[in-house]
Amino acid sequence: MAKVLTTRKENYAQWYNDLVLKAGLAENSAVRGCMVIKPYGYAIWEKMQYELDKMFKATGHTNAYFPLFIPKSYFSREASHVEGFAKECAVVTHYRLKNDPEGHGVIVDPDAKLEEELVIRPTSETIIWNTYKNWIQSYRDLPLLINQWANVVRWEMRTRLFLRTAEFLWQEGHTAHSTREEAIEETLKIIDLYSDFAEKYMSIPVIRGIKTESERFAGALETYAIEAMMQDGKALQSGTSHFLGQNFAKAFDVRFTDKNGKLDWVWATSWGVSTRLMGALIMAHSDDNGLILPPKLAPIQVVIVPIYKGDQQLGKISETATRIENELAASGLAVKYDSRDTQTPGWKFAEYELKGIPVRIALGPRDIENNTLEIARRDTLLKETVPQDNIVSRVKELLQNMEESIFSKALRFREENTYKTDDYEEFKDIMDNRSGFVFAHWDGSAKTETLIKEETKATVRCIPVEAEKEKGKCIRTGKPSSIRVLFAKAY
Amino acid sequence: MAKVLTTRKENYAQWYNDLVLKAGLAENSAVRGCMVIKPYGYAIWEKMQYELDKMFKATGHTNAYFPLFIPKSYFSREASHVEGFAKECAVVTHYRLKNDPEGHGVIVDPDAKLEEELVIRPTSETIIWNTYKNWIQSYRDLPLLINQWANVVRWEMRTRLFLRTAEFLWQEGHTAHSTREEAIEETLKIIDLYSDFAEKYMSIPVIRGIKTESERFAGALETYAIEAMMQDGKALQSGTSHFLGQNFAKAFDVRFTDKNGKLDWVWATSWGVSTRLMGALIMAHSDDNGLILPPKLAPIQVVIVPIYKGDQQLGKISETATRIENELAASGLAVKYDSRDTQTPGWKFAEYELKGIPVRIALGPRDIENNTLEIARRDTLLKETVPQDNIVSRVKELLQNMEESIFSKALRFREENTYKTDDYEEFKDIMDNRSGFVFAHWDGSAKTETLIKEETKATVRCIPVEAEKEKGKCIRTGKPSSIRVLFAKAY
Repeated sequence: MAKVLTTRKENYAQWYNDLVLKAGLAENSAVRGCMVIKPYGYAIWEKMQYELDKMFKATGHTNAYFPLFIPKSYFSREASHVEGFAKECAVVTHYRLKNDPEGHGVIVDPDAKLEEELVIRPTSETIIWNTYKNWIQSYRDLPLLINQWANVVRWEMRTRLFLRTAEFLWQEGHTAHSTREEAIEETLKIIDLYSDFAEKYMSIPVIRGIKTESERFAGALETYAIEAMMQDGKALQSGTSHFLGQNFAKAFDVRFTDKNGKLDWVWATSWGVSTRLMGALIMAHSDDNGLILPPKLAPIQVVIVPIYKGDQQLGKISETATRIENELAASGLAVKYDSRDTQTPGWKFAEYELKGIPVRIALGPRDIENNTLEIARRDTLLKETVPQDNIVSRVKELLQNMEESIFSKALRFREENTYKTDDYEEFKDIMDNRSGFVFAHWDGSAKTETLIKEETKATVRCIPVEAEKEKGKCIRTGKPSSIRVLFAKAY
Repeated sequence: MAKVLTTRKENYAQWYNDLVLKAGLAENSAVRGCMVIKPYGYAIWEKMQYELDKMFKATGHTNAYFPLFIPKSYFSREASHVEGFAKECAVVTHYRLKNDPEGHGVIVDPDAKLEEELVIRPTSETIIWNTYKNWIQSYRDLPLLINQWANVVRWEMRTRLFLRTAEFLWQEGHTAHSTREEAIEETLKIIDLYSDFAEKYMSIPVIRGIKTESERFAGALETYAIEAMMQDGKALQSGTSHFLGQNFAKAFDVRFTDKNGKLDWVWATSWGVSTRLMGALIMAHSDDNGLILPPKLAPIQVVIVPIYKGDQQLGKISETATRIENELAASGLAVKYDSRDTQTPGWKFAEYELKGIPVRIALGPRDIENNTLEIARRDTLLKETVPQDNIVSRVKELLQNMEESIFSKALRFREENTYKTDDYEEFKDIMDNRSGFVFAHWDGSAKTETLIKEETKATVRCIPVEAEKEKGKCIRTGKPSSIRVLFAKAY
């Protein structure tokens, strides 16, 4: 079978794009920058949504839905927010089309111009805080812990499937609190939740940290993020949680009466992860044969393929295959028996490797005689012939093992590609020739950050939460620094 | 406790609006015609989504996601579709804002005009069939059974919460088939699925039928709908399933090679239900005290309220309440113990009546002594004191009973307000003074339909699937008719 993917070594970016297309995850649409999420890709996203939603609800959050449209003027209310978000966005100016009087289809009706233009939400802080104004009067109305699953639009010039698209799907949490401390606690609780999700469900190790001022969310006092390493050594920001202080409360005049009858502005957080996580999931684990999915997020966890000649053999194999399928399904596993006669076993093996089905079971005539089956794991491609007995516990053990193994592999890769240096030449060499994460000292100024970016393409990904204080000198300027920060080239 | 709602008798429309607001289901946003779905309303919608999604998947459908934006020219491709959909819609003309040079916030950047305007999807047939073109080559690629959960926008002039809003949430199924028969079968399968959902989950009896040409989906050969009666006797169309023939395949040039190697256009269906179902659910069952929810869709099915004086009593009651809460939760019920000391039991009773919690359990000091509890059902407001033993089976039985009873009540109401007449004066009298469903003969012409609408405000809701052929004369024109159709005033 011919290789269907460009290899990672040949061209990592092309490999990623090939994989997304060939595995049936997503494709570009006719609308510039907007993608179609295909059924198999969407099934993975649904699994992510399901697990995240459970985690949000278990921590006291509820879902709601706010309008797609935001009046243009709302963006100007919060001074730094407007700079960050109100620029590259889709603007609705009219509400009607009409037949072209010259007979060429339809045209925009000039008489149907909106009094105030509406912006398609790039993020919903403004419309939500304008709503919260009516929901919050007293400390009894707080905390307000609300999440929204929605589509958002940011008019990106250079787009890539899942990683950066004009329209994307996400969840955005928007919480309101009576004290600064409680809001900060929420911000941290969520970044920990995201970190847990990435590590326990996506099997991707992440570094939690604080963003520098230049990478902070527009309107936030502090932005926390999780950063993951992809197989090309670049960082992918996979989730952010923002402590917004009282900025949006002040912009939208949201005050509450505290227990002592005193009026104060409400404290806020916001946080989100998006279909970008799909990009991280694909890039972190997959190989030149296709997708590798952590078992908890695989829409199909086990596939059974019959190896046979003629209908009589198939009939016999199907009996056993169906019994095994039912046993696995009854134990809660997502299993598929592919008995199609339109495709060869070889085609099916390649297809399920491409799609990253974690476990493949093959059954041939000899297996039926010997009460055996062939079981193959997708991550290592190792296979063995084993007895059919105890198949459920065997598969579950294998899935558990794969999950840990995928995580360990990603962690080992990150460790092997993480450096600590105080030498700017070495730093540049790493960024030029090896890529990876570098822990280095930085003087804390935006100017130096820009300088380093221009010279090496690396940016400060975050100031790690778990880093220990350590006196040193900025790798670029030699000025004093109290902590090593995480540098990397980033998606 | 003062009544919080206008009564149905006083003003049915006002009652509905009061209820939606006071029960915390939804509210109008600052953007004209767009609503905010509040957490409690959204929780009910999530339950509906969950059940519908299971039903779609059980019938072989998968989810995917297509772009929010549709290029303007796509609408002109299907001649009747453009007439129906491309008119009242939100049009994106620009992709950037910039700082107002005169310092007044931000303005639309005139340099960032799109070459072709983008329409926010009012429905997605065009963008989806443009995509299917690349997915379908052979009969092996068919059937394609895809559903999308999404937001859509139709620029309605007169909006009402849930019933008619500019932006609403829905699911839209779009399937592709190799034969006319298979597509018709799918259309019918889905209208039956919707009917099952309405009757078994929403406890609303519905009438399935075919729409007349004037009410048919723009671009369909046939539209099937389910129609439900609200408590004011008006009909609410609650779901539609369209047989699209080859119209969209032809418009977007989607052909396939059949088993004999012959090229043919692909056959299509589309179908959807929306947050409008929330309106139906609220209006069909609720009373002047608030919401009445069928148990399967209630986010909280049982609430436990302690009746006590002082912390010591509360402590004792809480022990029992928590035990009962845990027992009910362990059995899979959604249960809440409300031990807040900031609100009185009377306030809580009214609140949970307003929110339609199906079962309320009250526990006082005497109940603790006697091993009893008071159990109340929301639909009839009846309560009784019963032993605490076997509480799980008792509650489950009660919920089952309520579900049936709510459905029966709605069915009885519909039957009592359904008429059969051949007399136009009686017909007019019903529409003027009683409202309700009327089965009457109609000559099948759009002109007569319009005439009747102008004279009585009633429209042909559908030609019922289950109606028997019966020769008669059109109630308005006296021309021959072969079947009685369903007339009603409609939402």
